[in-house]
Amino acid sequence: MVLSMSLVVQKYGGTSVGTVDRIKDIAGRIAAVTRDNHRIVVVVSAMNHETDRLMMLAHEISAQPDARELDLLLSSGERTTIALVAMMLKELGVKAQSFTGRQVGIFTNSAHTKARIERVVADRITAALEHKFVPIVAGFQGINEQSDVTTLGRGGSDLTAIALAASLHADRCEIYTDVDGVYTADPRIVPTAKRLDCISYEEMLEMASLGAKVLQDRAVVFAANHQVRIVVKSSFANGSGTKVIKEHKGMERNAVSGVTYDRNQAKVTLVGVPDTPGIAARIFDPVAQANIIVDMIIQNIGQDAMTDVSFTVTKDDVSRAIEVMNCVAQEIHAKRVEVTRDIAKVSLVGVGMRAHSGVAAKMFVVMANEGINIMMISTSEIKISCVIEEKYVETAVELLHREFELDKAVR
Amino acid sequence: MVLSMSLVVQKYGGTSVGTVDRIKDIAGRIAAVTRDNHRIVVVVSAMNHETDRLMMLAHEISAQPDARELDLLLSSGERTTIALVAMMLKELGVKAQSFTGRQVGIFTNSAHTKARIERVVADRITAALEHKFVPIVAGFQGINEQSDVTTLGRGGSDLTAIALAASLHADRCEIYTDVDGVYTADPRIVPTAKRLDCISYEEMLEMASLGAKVLQDRAVVFAANHQVRIVVKSSFANGSGTKVIKEHKGMERNAVSGVTYDRNQAKVTLVGVPDTPGIAARIFDPVAQANIIVDMIIQNIGQDAMTDVSFTVTKDDVSRAIEVMNCVAQEIHAKRVEVTRDIAKVSLVGVGMRAHSGVAAKMFVVMANEGINIMMISTSEIKISCVIEEKYVETAVELLHREFELDKAVR
Repeated sequence: MVLSMSLVVQKYGGTSVGTVDRIKDIAGRIAAVTRDNHRIVVVVSAMNHETDRLMMLAHEISAQPDARELDLLLSSGERTTIALVAMMLKELGVKAQSFTGRQVGIFTNSAHTKARIERVVADRITAALEHKFVPIVAGFQGINEQSDVTTLGRGGSDLTAIALAASLHADRCEIYTDVDGVYTADPRIVPTAKRLDCISYEEMLEMASLGAKVLQDRAVVFAANHQVRIVVKSSFANGSGTKVIKEHKGMERNAVSGVTYDRNQAKVTLVGVPDTPGIAARIFDPVAQANIIVDMIIQNIGQDAMTDVSFTVTKDDVSRAIEVMNCVAQEIHAKRVEVTRDIAKVSLVGVGMRAHSGVAAKMFVVMANEGINIMMISTSEIKISCVIEEKYVETAVELLHREFELDKAVR
Repeated sequence: MVLSMSLVVQKYGGTSVGTVDRIKDIAGRIAAVTRDNHRIVVVVSAMNHETDRLMMLAHEISAQPDARELDLLLSSGERTTIALVAMMLKELGVKAQSFTGRQVGIFTNSAHTKARIERVVADRITAALEHKFVPIVAGFQGINEQSDVTTLGRGGSDLTAIALAASLHADRCEIYTDVDGVYTADPRIVPTAKRLDCISYEEMLEMASLGAKVLQDRAVVFAANHQVRIVVKSSFANGSGTKVIKEHKGMERNAVSGVTYDRNQAKVTLVGVPDTPGIAARIFDPVAQANIIVDMIIQNIGQDAMTDVSFTVTKDDVSRAIEVMNCVAQEIHAKRVEVTRDIAKVSLVGVGMRAHSGVAAKMFVVMANEGINIMMISTSEIKISCVIEEKYVETAVELLHREFELDKAVR
């Protein structure tokens, strides 16, 4: 009888490889998997703080470092880790070999610092697996057509792992991080928050883009498109983690799966805008041109054919957004530009919303009872977000968690 | 009228790129060269202490780190530097682009940690020069047939620079270091030591392998074979430096060009060796097998068909040499193994020795007058070396420098 051997892709983030001792720990973990006769591919990030160190060097030289050179610079971080992990495994008697983004065959477009994966040609990885090696792969990096190094943006190692799992038809992709799964809310705010056993790609995506930094959002989209089974686990503790899988009926038992929040928000308001046709395009075209991502937009009904237009951006983009709006305001004869920085977004996420009605109404009642003013609202099929004053974040998250009985969540 | 533009390869060592401020300095130097309308290729080492930092990480993991992984690990150092130097040049308005060993096209054999360059295919460098870019090249690294990263051994950035200068038919290769040229002796020992204006490849090679750490010895051999004109200069001061060029008649005016010394020496003696034919092979074959490089060998005439055999190795190799000798002693029934660590080698170097006689005799007289015992002697056409007690090094170097009137040296 021939037992088919499973193939697992494991990804270890920066804290999981942050010191030589941590590297020893994960090497032991990897060695155990190989003893169980599973085939395994390991993707690693740069050691904790290493990317920051390199970024600081770059910024000592230039306020806006050249993107091609920045990619080369940052790619050193993961190269260091793969060499050290491979050495450690050999020290433990495990056959292992390191592979850079180029050696793996991660081909990307040329959008330096945020490149998109175009194809994965993992021939060397397949060959290494056939020869019973554990391939140790540098996350976050690839090469473009010119054979120049590119990087995949913040959290890009997740994308490397998932793309490689898809290309190799792996049984699953395990993402090791410093939390032991996805929770119904941030446990630092809600001590009774529960770990979810499973979550759908769509929910995970909403959570990722809403600020729960467990998984890169682009990686989740890639996983959903290629049906890669993900498990989010802690590299510091044992436990079954949270599975990120295709949505199924049982997931709709609860209306809401989790409460998330995002403090990285700011509101820009253009006051006194002449209410003429086509005015929205004249406001938001320049914003898009400046590569600023707008989240929510709201237009207040004003007087005298005048209106106020507000929108939210991340705090990083706010100063550029003000620059752009000052120009726009002059052009379209708006009165002035106002900015509010002390805001945050609180959201409910759940595929159950499709089956349960009244979720939004209940959310608004909770806020109203506490006297929390809702400044903006946006919804999708499986998400409701409210912008509120930043000081109310903890209160809102706690109340919503209790109201939707997430401390009793079992999935 | 078309002026032919000269092409210069410049190499900057670890101290020359050791901090962001130092990188700013050399970028300014490079920018000045481009303003003078010269074409320039820049080769850089890892930032000072970076290689040591990476090596320490590796040794925290393994006493003998895997050579392939070590090469990948160490190659990060130069990648960091090229990115930072290219960023800095762009900041100064100079078109610059970084190139890794692979992107340059430095193809080597697979002898990890001490690979040999097999060919240089510098197409991307040529193209970059045509497009008026300053190529910033990572020294010390190449790739093998399997497209794995290799490194060229200690001081390997010199070899990268010289191999690239040969491949591009550069007018000259400038080696920037923390000293402003090659001296008649170590100025820390002999304050009256003089900088040499020029020196032959052969002399430079003897000096390099005798411990004057200005240039990697393999790089000097490569330069001699390909007639690459080298200039050794300081990156901290202006000055014409020392030219390393083909030997010519004028160089023979002085019998001696310089006095060098090497403290990294130890003497191993096999006492009571039966004096039978083939005994030398039985002693030195195992040494060669163990990859230990033996410098000098001396055989004392003994009594009763017994002899003593002494040889010198570097201090790094001494413990392995003792291990090997203990085995050999048992096998050939020698009496015992003795080791002397407090020895050093003092040498006179000069192509003028070919024309002047009596150099060796004069050297021995100087030593004898001072009561310095000469333990071993070795000579080549342009060099005489003596092994002496380490405590006499300074005295011997000073006396020889004075005796051969090197403080008056003009070349």
